[in-house]
Amino acid sequence: MKIKPRLSRGLRDLLPQTMLARQRVIDTVRRVYETYGFAPLETPAIEYLDVLSGSAGEEAQHSIFRVTNPEDEDLGLRFDLTVPLARVVSQHRQIPFPFKRYQVSQVWRADKPDPGRFRQFTQFDIDTVGAPCGTADTEILAAICDCLEAIGAGPYSVRFSSREILNLLLQHAGIPADLGKDVFRVLDKLEKVGWKRVRSELTTGYVDPSGDPIRGLGLQDAQVGAIEEFLEISNPDRRAVVGRLRDLFSDVDGSGARLDTVESISEDLETLGYGSDRVVLDVSIARGLAYYTGPVFEAVLEDAPQFGSVFGGGRYDGLVARFGGQRIPATGASLGVDRLLAAMEHLGRCGSEQTPAQVLVTVMDKNLRGECLELAFELRRAGVRTEIHSGSGRLGKQLKRADRLKIPYAILIGEDELARGVVTLKQMSVASSAGTHLTDHRAWKAARFGQIEIPRSETVTRLRELLQAGG
Amino acid sequence: MKIKPRLSRGLRDLLPQTMLARQRVIDTVRRVYETYGFAPLETPAIEYLDVLSGSAGEEAQHSIFRVTNPEDEDLGLRFDLTVPLARVVSQHRQIPFPFKRYQVSQVWRADKPDPGRFRQFTQFDIDTVGAPCGTADTEILAAICDCLEAIGAGPYSVRFSSREILNLLLQHAGIPADLGKDVFRVLDKLEKVGWKRVRSELTTGYVDPSGDPIRGLGLQDAQVGAIEEFLEISNPDRRAVVGRLRDLFSDVDGSGARLDTVESISEDLETLGYGSDRVVLDVSIARGLAYYTGPVFEAVLEDAPQFGSVFGGGRYDGLVARFGGQRIPATGASLGVDRLLAAMEHLGRCGSEQTPAQVLVTVMDKNLRGECLELAFELRRAGVRTEIHSGSGRLGKQLKRADRLKIPYAILIGEDELARGVVTLKQMSVASSAGTHLTDHRAWKAARFGQIEIPRSETVTRLRELLQAGG
Repeated sequence: MKIKPRLSRGLRDLLPQTMLARQRVIDTVRRVYETYGFAPLETPAIEYLDVLSGSAGEEAQHSIFRVTNPEDEDLGLRFDLTVPLARVVSQHRQIPFPFKRYQVSQVWRADKPDPGRFRQFTQFDIDTVGAPCGTADTEILAAICDCLEAIGAGPYSVRFSSREILNLLLQHAGIPADLGKDVFRVLDKLEKVGWKRVRSELTTGYVDPSGDPIRGLGLQDAQVGAIEEFLEISNPDRRAVVGRLRDLFSDVDGSGARLDTVESISEDLETLGYGSDRVVLDVSIARGLAYYTGPVFEAVLEDAPQFGSVFGGGRYDGLVARFGGQRIPATGASLGVDRLLAAMEHLGRCGSEQTPAQVLVTVMDKNLRGECLELAFELRRAGVRTEIHSGSGRLGKQLKRADRLKIPYAILIGEDELARGVVTLKQMSVASSAGTHLTDHRAWKAARFGQIEIPRSETVTRLRELLQAGG
Repeated sequence: MKIKPRLSRGLRDLLPQTMLARQRVIDTVRRVYETYGFAPLETPAIEYLDVLSGSAGEEAQHSIFRVTNPEDEDLGLRFDLTVPLARVVSQHRQIPFPFKRYQVSQVWRADKPDPGRFRQFTQFDIDTVGAPCGTADTEILAAICDCLEAIGAGPYSVRFSSREILNLLLQHAGIPADLGKDVFRVLDKLEKVGWKRVRSELTTGYVDPSGDPIRGLGLQDAQVGAIEEFLEISNPDRRAVVGRLRDLFSDVDGSGARLDTVESISEDLETLGYGSDRVVLDVSIARGLAYYTGPVFEAVLEDAPQFGSVFGGGRYDGLVARFGGQRIPATGASLGVDRLLAAMEHLGRCGSEQTPAQVLVTVMDKNLRGECLELAFELRRAGVRTEIHSGSGRLGKQLKRADRLKIPYAILIGEDELARGVVTLKQMSVASSAGTHLTDHRAWKAARFGQIEIPRSETVTRLRELLQAGG
């Protein structure tokens, strides 16, 4: 019986070209996070359902993939990496605080799949658990900047604010604290749906384009007016924003001290060279999740804002306590690896290689397979990523493969080459007609064919030189 | 409501110390596989149940974790990486053959958990799809050797044989071909249970220690005698083994040609420097899986044979055809990452670091936090993996943390150091109980306290030198 090869909706394979770009990003981010002293953690994909639910947003709970084990327990696939981290620090009491960990793993959400929205995706999280607000949060913001620089994703903007600022806003506008969670959730949509709809949702509600009624929060005009005035605090200079916040909230008892932490993070960033040109204090940042308690972070690529924020995070001092025991401060950020790569792909900032191989050793003559094999292994031992022809097919077909996989070089050995102690090296990626800058007696003689002869004994050295020169 | 932090049976967290050792192995294996030109692939954890079952062994099928999606489809978590690969090459017809891919991913099996046996574990597979028996198989064997050398797991033995040899045995012993699958499955247990039990299972069956009756295959004495004679072909020299096989099977029509492939692989390995000292032609290797059709491979660590084979694999020319279309030749091997690491851990060949950090910048004096932060970021930008104290706690507690996490160096900056333009560098791995004794001069004068003073302006350079010198 034949089985149809297929995947369930919202799931996809990542083929080599996609994976090579992805690995480059992941390796880079990992290197950056390790320079900050974050250590790797891995947790199982499967968690108890009561561990997963109860925390985080309701949306996430509804989209948990259920899993069945032989013991018929209530299990699910994790939908983020923060809940498992909170479980880990509660369960493994021997872990010394502060616990600075990174985790790059798959997460699953059984949402309605859209183009570009998948049911399995990769998050790359850093968190510091057990450190109070301050240095740890500054580090998260700086690490986000360092990652985006190192990845080479182009110009970006890191934005931060704080739930403290939003709490001051509630007091200033006379909005009851228990409405806060809902107000923040609505404000989080500001960039996506605009002020008009946010205003409607804060007051009387509205009917959305698909005909569904969206309930309003019932705020008064004066309250919404205060929010609007607050949202107009926008200034590329962080110090100016802090100053305006101090003015605006001067009517709230103790607001000065509560703004000190945000100011201190901003000043630390300044000292360390993370200026207002790339880290903005943007008071419109709310972040949707209910569990944030302090600073909140996000980052967008300026050339691809339509992809939304590629980083998101914040401080969540209450989450760990869900598992019993005391309140443990924690802060962190999550990189949406798939979203970042989709944006970079859109911007043409991912490579197009389909294999790590740098050279293909062809087999023109079956009798010389041994010689070809020996050369391939010599190259590999010298660190040159080498493929040797292992199928059937003539030389033309072999070279077509090198072309298609974008392998930069091919090596040809025939009876003639063998007799003269040389190999033919063919440059595959010269899409142009030339390579003529490489002329002169020694090399690239037949440059119009993109090929030269080099002594067999010098093949490894010469090829390494060419590859190091970025050829 | 408090939720108990816990994991379902057979699942575990991988804490930083474990993960750092694991990443070192995975990075090394990846580097080796890339020098062979294998390219990365990732497939979703969730597959259709009919894709997963029907292939591979019955055991694996029974242990599939079922998954539920909103569409109520029959889904499960993958139990290996070979079946998803077969699906991928059937589904994505544009993939050029030979397709040389690696995949390092989690797999799940709902088996009865034992100590050291988990329900989620990591496999690192390489496969070449679309290449006939020969070079591709030689490469798999060579790559296994290169991985084990590069990992530094100690002495190892790679063993190979071929289903062709076992098929010749069936003919030679007069055993019907349709019994082959069962005979191979029983022979695969040889190393684990010994010849006496294998013999019983091949003939009349027996009652196992737990009282369960094990059905016998009903072979005749002469047939079992022929198998026993065959299994006695054991020689450290591959050429001698090939010679004895040619003699033994001289009664089987065409046996000579059918042994040529094995001999050719053996000769290629010889040419490339993979001698009989590390790659053995061991005719007792059967490998349990039903789908193997040609060469089969495995590898054991000689210092930890009780952990079983850390690599396993073989050629499976029929598997891809399950998804329709033509027969596509394929060969590959799987590294059991968890098993290898358990063996290395047992042998004391894993590191004991608990963080990537190489230096902890302490904060002795809150007023100097800015100076400490600046130094930490200078170090990071120079590639030194640096942690800065971000919690509360006095110097003694901070140093204890560095000790506990095995961070090799700590840096101390007090008012005194600041005034004199120096920092105190403390070597932590020198297990010294001494406190904050400040020495007066350049070198490791007070080496018994493991600390020296260095000019603030030279801190980055000096520390990099020390770290590069392996300090």
